[in-house]
Amino acid sequence: MLHTDRIGKLAEILRTDGLEAIFAGPSADMEYLADLKLFDDERPKGLMISKDGKCFALVPMLYGEEMRNALGESVSHKIWADHEGFHEAFRGGCRELGIGAGKIAINDGVRAVDLIEMKKAVGADYVNGAETLSPLRSRKDETELENMRRAGAIADAVMEDISKFLKPGMKERDVRDRLLELFAEQDEEGLSFSPIVASGPGGSMPHYQGSGREIRGGDFVVIDMGCRYRGYCSDMTRTFCIGEPTAEMKKVYGIVLEAQKAGEAAVRAGATGQDVDRAARRVIADAGYGDCFLNRLGHGVGIAIHENPYIIEGNDAPLVPGNVFSVEPGIYLPGKFGVRIENLVAVRADGTAEPLNKFTRDMIVIK
Amino acid sequence: MLHTDRIGKLAEILRTDGLEAIFAGPSADMEYLADLKLFDDERPKGLMISKDGKCFALVPMLYGEEMRNALGESVSHKIWADHEGFHEAFRGGCRELGIGAGKIAINDGVRAVDLIEMKKAVGADYVNGAETLSPLRSRKDETELENMRRAGAIADAVMEDISKFLKPGMKERDVRDRLLELFAEQDEEGLSFSPIVASGPGGSMPHYQGSGREIRGGDFVVIDMGCRYRGYCSDMTRTFCIGEPTAEMKKVYGIVLEAQKAGEAAVRAGATGQDVDRAARRVIADAGYGDCFLNRLGHGVGIAIHENPYIIEGNDAPLVPGNVFSVEPGIYLPGKFGVRIENLVAVRADGTAEPLNKFTRDMIVIK
Repeated sequence: MLHTDRIGKLAEILRTDGLEAIFAGPSADMEYLADLKLFDDERPKGLMISKDGKCFALVPMLYGEEMRNALGESVSHKIWADHEGFHEAFRGGCRELGIGAGKIAINDGVRAVDLIEMKKAVGADYVNGAETLSPLRSRKDETELENMRRAGAIADAVMEDISKFLKPGMKERDVRDRLLELFAEQDEEGLSFSPIVASGPGGSMPHYQGSGREIRGGDFVVIDMGCRYRGYCSDMTRTFCIGEPTAEMKKVYGIVLEAQKAGEAAVRAGATGQDVDRAARRVIADAGYGDCFLNRLGHGVGIAIHENPYIIEGNDAPLVPGNVFSVEPGIYLPGKFGVRIENLVAVRADGTAEPLNKFTRDMIVIK
Repeated sequence: MLHTDRIGKLAEILRTDGLEAIFAGPSADMEYLADLKLFDDERPKGLMISKDGKCFALVPMLYGEEMRNALGESVSHKIWADHEGFHEAFRGGCRELGIGAGKIAINDGVRAVDLIEMKKAVGADYVNGAETLSPLRSRKDETELENMRRAGAIADAVMEDISKFLKPGMKERDVRDRLLELFAEQDEEGLSFSPIVASGPGGSMPHYQGSGREIRGGDFVVIDMGCRYRGYCSDMTRTFCIGEPTAEMKKVYGIVLEAQKAGEAAVRAGATGQDVDRAARRVIADAGYGDCFLNRLGHGVGIAIHENPYIIEGNDAPLVPGNVFSVEPGIYLPGKFGVRIENLVAVRADGTAEPLNKFTRDMIVIK
C-alpha cells in the first residue's frame, strides 16, 4: 500500500533540497513508502516520486501484477518486457511527470550499471539520494518503536537459548543452524541479516563469513544476529567464553563491556553521534587497544539493518527522539580472538536512552 | 585466492574492449576472480583490475583481515576507516595503477550511490561493465560443469522429496520451511535464491513473494528453488496439482510442458538465444496464450543465478559449449493460477544439449 502521507512528506524534502524527483529501487525506502518488497533480480524496477508528490513505477512485466496490487492505480505503471529493456518505459515515465531538466536523486537500491543506462535514457543530473529519506526514516514513531522493541525481545530470547545450546565440539555452522531454527520458531518474517558465528581467531574479523571451524575450549565465540518484526530489524551481539578465560581474555572483555556501557550512557537527545562514538572509543583507547577497534561505534537500524544515524567521528548532528541505533564497540586481535558487545538503543520522546536489548552483557563462561 | 589465470584473461578482454580497467564490487565476478564473498553492507569495497592485469583492492578497515587473506600481497590493499570515507583510498589506488584518463568499467556489484561518489574521487568515464566478464564466466569448464551437475542433482532429490511432502491444508511457508530443511540436509552451502512456493492465484506472479496462503484442493503450486554446490547454482521449477485438475488446468499444463520440451530440443551450439526462446514461445503463442508468458525463456546460470547467456528475443549470439541456462516457459493467468516448468540445460563440448535436471516434468497430482 502506498503511504500517501509519507509520499507527501518526501515531496516536501525534495522541494527543500532542490531536487526534482527521487528514484527508489528495491530497498528499505521502497518498503517504507509502499510496503513493497520484490524479488531481488537484475531487472531495473522502482518508484519515481516527483517534488509534486506524483509517482510512476518502473515495472518489469513479470512484476506487473504484484506492483499494481501494492501501488494501486494512483501511480502510473510503466511496464517493460524483458526483450525491450527498460529505457523507453523510464523515459516515458519521466516525460509524464515532467522530470528531466533538474536534479534526480537516486537511492541506494539502484545498481551503478542501471544508473549508467538511465542516463542514456534521460540525461538528467543524477545525485546521491542514499540519505534523502533519512529525516523521515530515522525518526521512528511509536508504532515503529513498538515493532523494534518486539524484534529486540525476540533476539534477547534467542540469545538466551543459544547461550544454553552452545558447547565445545560444535561447529560454527551447527550454532548458526540452531539460530535459524530458534528464530523460525519465534517469528515468521525471517532474519535481518545472515547470522555471524565467529569462534577463536575468526572473531577478529567483525563480519566473519566462515562456518566450518570447530568450537573449542579457550575460544571466544562472537554471535551477531537479529530478526525482523513487522518489517523492523533487531541486531545484537554477545561474546561467549568457552571454558575458563585467560587473564588477557578477561581484560579485553572487561574493556569492551566498559566501552559499551560508556557508549550507552552518552546517549540522549542533543548529543551527537560523534559524542557517543567518542565516549566508548575513549575507554578502548585509554586501555591501549585503540588500533584494535576497527569500525564506527554504531549504525542506525529500522527497516534497513544499516541506516542513519551513524554513530561515528564526524557526525555532529544532534540525536533526536525516535532515533534507534547500535552501540557496538569491539576489540579485534588478528590471529587470536575478537570481542564485541552490541545493544540497540532508542532515544525516547523525553530524550532519554532506552536499550532495546536486556540480555546480560556480563561474560558467560560455557563449560 | 586470486585466480591469476582469470585475471590475465580479463586483462586481455579489457584491452580488446578499449577499457582501462574494471572495478568489481561484491558479486559473482568477485567470487569468480578471487573466491571472495563478503558481508553485504553499504561500505564500498571491491577489486580494481587494470588492462595490464594489475590490481588494487578497496578495503573498508573492518574487512582488512579477510580481504588480505583472500587476495594476498600481490594486490595493493587501499584501506579506509569508517570515519574517513573511501574517496582518498580509491583515488590512491587509481593513482598507483595509473588509472583515470580513459574508460573504467563498473560491474553489477556496485551501487549507483557509490558510483556517484567514485566520480567525485576520480573523474573518469565510467561505463557499464555488467557483462565484461561474460565471455569468461559463461563458458564453464569441466570442473564448473561437474559442480553444476551436482547442484542440479541435489535440486532433483529435494524436488522429489517435496513432491511427497506437499499436502492440502499446508501453508506455503510450511513447504518453504521444509525445502530449507531438505537443502540443509543435503548441502552445506546454502541456497541459490530464496525459494518460491506460489499456490493458487499467487502462481500467476512469476516471482511471488508471499508465504501465508493455505494450499487447497484445486490449486496449482509452483515451486521454484535451487542450491549452491562449490559456489555454483541450481535452479529448477515444477508445478504440482492438488487434487484433480480441471480441463483448463490440464490444457495449460500440457502447453507449458510442450513449450519446455520444444525449448530444450532447440538447444545446441550455434543456435542463438533468440532461436531457443522462439521455439518455446511459438508453442504458447500458437495455443493462444502468447500474452500470458510474461518473461524471457531463460537466463544463464553459474556463480550468479542470473547471468549470460540470456535466452531472449534479440539475442543473436550463437550458443557455445560450456553455456548453461534455464529453459522456463510459463503461462500466468492473473486471479487464477500459473504454470511454470524449468530445467537447466548445458551445451556439451560436442555441441549437444544436456539437461541438468532429471526429475519428471509430467504433471504430478497430489491427493
